[in-house]
Amino acid sequence: MRIVDIITKKVNGKALSPAEINFFIQGYTEGTIPDYQASALLMAIFFQDMNEDERAHLTMAMVNSGETIDLSAIEGIKVDKHSTGGVGDTTTLVLAPLVAALDIPVAKMSGRGLGHTGGTLDKLEAATGFHLEISKEEFIHLVNQNKVAVIGQSGNLTPADKKLYALRDVTGTVNSIPLIASSIMSKKIAAGSDAIVLDVKTGAGAFMKSLEDSIELAEAMVKIGHNVGRHTMAVISDMSQPLGYAIGNALEMKEAIDTLKGEGPEDLMELSLVLGSQMVMLAKKATSLEEARKKLIEVIKNGKALEKFKLFLASQGGDPSIVDNTDNLPQAKYKIEVPALKSGFVRKIVADEIGVAAMLLGAGRATKDDKVDLAVGLMLRKKVGDEVKQGESLVTIYANREDVSSVIQKIQDNYEIGEFVAAPKLIYQTITE
Amino acid sequence: MRIVDIITKKVNGKALSPAEINFFIQGYTEGTIPDYQASALLMAIFFQDMNEDERAHLTMAMVNSGETIDLSAIEGIKVDKHSTGGVGDTTTLVLAPLVAALDIPVAKMSGRGLGHTGGTLDKLEAATGFHLEISKEEFIHLVNQNKVAVIGQSGNLTPADKKLYALRDVTGTVNSIPLIASSIMSKKIAAGSDAIVLDVKTGAGAFMKSLEDSIELAEAMVKIGHNVGRHTMAVISDMSQPLGYAIGNALEMKEAIDTLKGEGPEDLMELSLVLGSQMVMLAKKATSLEEARKKLIEVIKNGKALEKFKLFLASQGGDPSIVDNTDNLPQAKYKIEVPALKSGFVRKIVADEIGVAAMLLGAGRATKDDKVDLAVGLMLRKKVGDEVKQGESLVTIYANREDVSSVIQKIQDNYEIGEFVAAPKLIYQTITE
Repeated sequence: MRIVDIITKKVNGKALSPAEINFFIQGYTEGTIPDYQASALLMAIFFQDMNEDERAHLTMAMVNSGETIDLSAIEGIKVDKHSTGGVGDTTTLVLAPLVAALDIPVAKMSGRGLGHTGGTLDKLEAATGFHLEISKEEFIHLVNQNKVAVIGQSGNLTPADKKLYALRDVTGTVNSIPLIASSIMSKKIAAGSDAIVLDVKTGAGAFMKSLEDSIELAEAMVKIGHNVGRHTMAVISDMSQPLGYAIGNALEMKEAIDTLKGEGPEDLMELSLVLGSQMVMLAKKATSLEEARKKLIEVIKNGKALEKFKLFLASQGGDPSIVDNTDNLPQAKYKIEVPALKSGFVRKIVADEIGVAAMLLGAGRATKDDKVDLAVGLMLRKKVGDEVKQGESLVTIYANREDVSSVIQKIQDNYEIGEFVAAPKLIYQTITE
Repeated sequence: MRIVDIITKKVNGKALSPAEINFFIQGYTEGTIPDYQASALLMAIFFQDMNEDERAHLTMAMVNSGETIDLSAIEGIKVDKHSTGGVGDTTTLVLAPLVAALDIPVAKMSGRGLGHTGGTLDKLEAATGFHLEISKEEFIHLVNQNKVAVIGQSGNLTPADKKLYALRDVTGTVNSIPLIASSIMSKKIAAGSDAIVLDVKTGAGAFMKSLEDSIELAEAMVKIGHNVGRHTMAVISDMSQPLGYAIGNALEMKEAIDTLKGEGPEDLMELSLVLGSQMVMLAKKATSLEEARKKLIEVIKNGKALEKFKLFLASQGGDPSIVDNTDNLPQAKYKIEVPALKSGFVRKIVADEIGVAAMLLGAGRATKDDKVDLAVGLMLRKKVGDEVKQGESLVTIYANREDVSSVIQKIQDNYEIGEFVAAPKLIYQTITE
């Protein structure tokens, strides 16, 4: 087998066989296939696409390129949730204790990422002392005992995907449905859960800006899951404006706690219930979505979800007092209001640019070596559809420096105020196998 | 400027600016742009094509990536001929002395190539002593004096093309019209001639197997020539079966001499006159193709073309006696006939496979280090449309070894004998600016 023949086959629009896909992924992982042939094949895939079988085989080839996590020692059906990423997306913090409170095992793997705010791990570290340096055995023990734990990302999970992703990033092939779908799914499958709930974001703050692309990606991932034998479903949710009000690590932690108390923002609550219900269904802890939703609301109302969160934080060294007293979270030195420049209704909040504003304050990482400031961030005071008077605050900036003029400017530039428009739909579609 | 943005622009189907094309070619030549980004861009060009302007700019960027030859010290309009390559193509040996006999300067650059037979240089070496180790000054002096000379290929002509061609070869992007056209044209333009006649072969023995592709390539090259200010025209000629009868270095040399005497194969003579007339027109030595053709026939009839060939061979150390006595050419030890396996008419001769048969005898090079045997090769006895009786010779093998059973087999396998079909058209189309 020669890689140039495999490239030519894909150039000519033919489907690659499982053996050819394995040859490519194995050779590229081991370094016997050079970057320049891999990038040519990726570009050919970009233009000629892959059929369902190829996508499933590519996913499994990437899964098999490295270590996989064995969660079989954990009792029950392990359901993982994955979001394609957005601005102010606090659902993971809400969902982990929420579904664990229904005795559904949540065995999460987490790492630090690049982005407008830190990753789930950074947010959890807002509970002083929280850490995920635990052994595999302890991890499994904790999940069995508490139904929820987080462990650090294994170094050698889907090495093919890591290498390919870095290559795609510099060769103009990031935006390819078969490559994105197999990349996400390979990581989820290697991480060992039995079933997967995908939250595919759509809109300005999402990776997929158009609804059509978001649906295509969601369908592609659900089909891969189905074809490799993992129950998978996807929700397409809005990311045209940020989710909830908080953007920033400690701020999002507080928002998650509020939501677990039943006092969170409406959109974050609703999305958590929608995703959570799907997780409960996949875990076979309810026979209908209605029943699942009812059970979730119950553990919020009776405080079990909140108790689970405290237990979870404490079990990994975190300070659980933040749950009852959010003043114990890291606090920013300055709170600065961003006034509206005119009266009217909020028509649009460009989510990704607002995310950049939070990153400018130090809430996120542009490069791996950047340090995240857990205390800083933004609290939105107005969302799309809200009325606002000139001079009234659009956003409160939480900063550890005094001069935030560029952040104020960026926020004002990305709030469109004018005639009334209704708030955007939160859930566009649900895609099941 | 970042190469990833240039790739993305092309991925999205946009035209690249001259600055972007130069940035790519210069960076890739100098090694600041790595292979994996170059191969991604080449693949994007493969799928998204390049418009006329981009093709012209790419060609000139490759020309400017290295040395160019200055032929301005040679009097008259320098017209170069280029063939896209075929089996038994002896036209260069015929045309060089033929048009030089009409006082049109022929300043050729030549090297050894890979292929079924050697390159023009190998063929010229069948005149013992011929060499092209001459200085630039001597080359120019010889062309001014004799109107024809050949010099060795400069090492640093279009280095970008050399690097890109090697990359395309291993990344599935050989077969792209804008890339093929700019590659050929950049070499011709760097070689310094004022006008270019292209012989684009079509059929089984050609790089372009279909007539449509051949026409597309020819049009692309003619347009590039026009857009960069070099008069260019193209002839689409048949390569479904080999041209002429001879395939092999000394055998083709003899065939060229026969043709210059007016005694060559009809198709080789006709193609030489068609291409030659175009060269005469571009050199402004005639006002119509008819007049040009008449002048060419005249120098064949009056022996001036043949005399020019002798002078040319002698001026670069070659033995001119071969022209009058072709027995002085290198002779093979064995002549073996290939009998027809049945009676009927020749319907098809698969040109490229017959070329491989000649290479098996040692007539050509598979790798750069192979030594060419000038004496060996094939003389076709039957061509498409000819009647043949069972046992009658299809081909005479000229070999320096006795066992040629695999060559006989290959030839018989690639001659189709059956119901009568007419000989294929020789010239399909002429494409002018």
